[in-house]
Amino acid sequence: MKRSVEVEILVPFHDVDVVGIVWHGHYAKYFEIARCALLDSFDYNYDRMRASGYLWPLIDMRMRYIKPSLFGQKVRVRATLVEWESCLRIEYLVRDDATGVRLTKGESVQVAVRIGTNEMCPVSPDILFERLGMPKPS
Amino acid sequence: MKRSVEVEILVPFHDVDVVGIVWHGHYAKYFEIARCALLDSFDYNYDRMRASGYLWPLIDMRMRYIKPSLFGQKVRVRATLVEWESCLRIEYLVRDDATGVRLTKGESVQVAVRIGTNEMCPVSPDILFERLGMPKPS
Amino acid sequence: MKRSVEVEILVPFHDVDVVGIVWHGHYAKYFEIARCALLDSFDYNYDRMRASGYLWPLIDMRMRYIKPSLFGQKVRVRATLVEWESCLRIEYLVRDDATGVRLTKGESVQVAVRIGTNEMCPVSPDILFERLGMPKPS
Amino acid sequence: MKRSVEVEILVPFHDVDVVGIVWHGHYAKYFEIARCALLDSFDYNYDRMRASGYLWPLIDMRMRYIKPSLFGQKVRVRATLVEWESCLRIEYLVRDDATGVRLTKGESVQVAVRIGTNEMCPVSPDILFERLGMPKPS
Repeated sequence: MKRSVEVEILVPFHDVDVVGIVWHGHYAKYFEIARCALLDSFDYNYDRMRASGYLWPLIDMRMRYIKPSLFGQKVRVRATLVEWESCLRIEYLVRDDATGVRLTKGESVQVAVRIGTNEMCPVSPDILFERLGMPKPS
Repeated sequence: MKRSVEVEILVPFHDVDVVGIVWHGHYAKYFEIARCALLDSFDYNYDRMRASGYLWPLIDMRMRYIKPSLFGQKVRVRATLVEWESCLRIEYLVRDDATGVRLTKGESVQVAVRIGTNEMCPVSPDILFERLGMPKPS
Repeated sequence: MKRSVEVEILVPFHDVDVVGIVWHGHYAKYFEIARCALLDSFDYNYDRMRASGYLWPLIDMRMRYIKPSLFGQKVRVRATLVEWESCLRIEYLVRDDATGVRLTKGESVQVAVRIGTNEMCPVSPDILFERLGMPKPS
Repeated sequence: MKRSVEVEILVPFHDVDVVGIVWHGHYAKYFEIARCALLDSFDYNYDRMRASGYLWPLIDMRMRYIKPSLFGQKVRVRATLVEWESCLRIEYLVRDDATGVRLTKGESVQVAVRIGTNEMCPVSPDILFERLGMPKPS
């Protein structure tokens, strides 16, 4: 099973640097927009996470820049859930919407932390498996 | 009585647009850095506001752009409290640190909102006058 | 004649502050997204401006905050061109997409600056009237 | 030889998310502030890069989040140049200023691209070795 969601983003002027390309740090925003759409797709976005008694802070993020994105360019960002048993590992791919040319790749890792105790969960909590409609590994 | 605080900011690369000047929206950040230093000067920064039972959301902000700021430029931002009886009105002046040349001016207005009831206060709450060390107008 | 364009924005997580509402400075981004759509509607966006020999820096911006916007809320931002003979004055209105409730209002003013001489134009250059399909006032 | 520079950052309110901690993407800004100070230390910051005929776009960035940073917290960001022969590889460490506790680690990789031809350089150009005061490897 692979869960993937795509969102479209029109690169805004305020994301572009003096060289005329998207400043590298802004891809964290594009990734998050796609990640939230992915989490929405199984009804476990940030608000739901907190309501379920868990935060899921990022512990790792990586970005690889292949080609620049420009002001006004329409890009597609795909977020794919690739791991969920002990963490949420999500991969990202930003492509030019018209040509499909790959622009940026990335990955993020989140782990469940129980609200109150602040305790990190070595295995994802039951609620995630329920949302994903999958049995918890025994 | 006039309360003024100044902070120094070194313009970072990620605040500069394709023309090589600070993108106009980023001055809201510079204003806030100076505003927080001003609020700290009378021990009533955002955390203290909330602890005192009030939020102080902005209801108005204005910016006038005189000259551009550039990457690597050191600027000074002065925040001055000009009104406090019914709101917090703060004026801002951004100047080049070396020459004193004025770059941007602005103003923000905040009002007290009681946490819980969400009720807006027509007169600033007692705690503000205490912090400012001033009698409440009768 | 009045020119208006509307865009939809889904409030992203990274625009929301500790109180759970859009941080006031981020509306400058929402305004710009609507402004660029408006400029696109008469084919005179930032790239075209520069190609025509002019920059149009902002000299004034104002924002009035009526109600907060929340993470995940869909908002509509309308940009309306209200003045163009000596400057580009644009008004903004951010509303909740579902109910139409007004959240934030604002205004920006830009003036033409000739690239090269850096000279500010007291009257908008011919190219703007051409793009707008309107005669230049005599 | 190892080149390291440290900068201090006071976490601003607008960098903090709804949970009260610095939003993960903002560390790209903190890294850049430290990176620019490091590049300044051998007089080869972004402006100098361009003047020398090269851009140095990031091709890779990684962040590992250890502990959260909070509004008003003073943090120190150290940038260390760890590789320069074929790329600029820089490591980052964000620590609490008072206790030295490690908060976030990271790394970025930049490669030289010749302005005009847009050609990527497999070996760093002479100008970098000059700036670093080191012989070019033969």
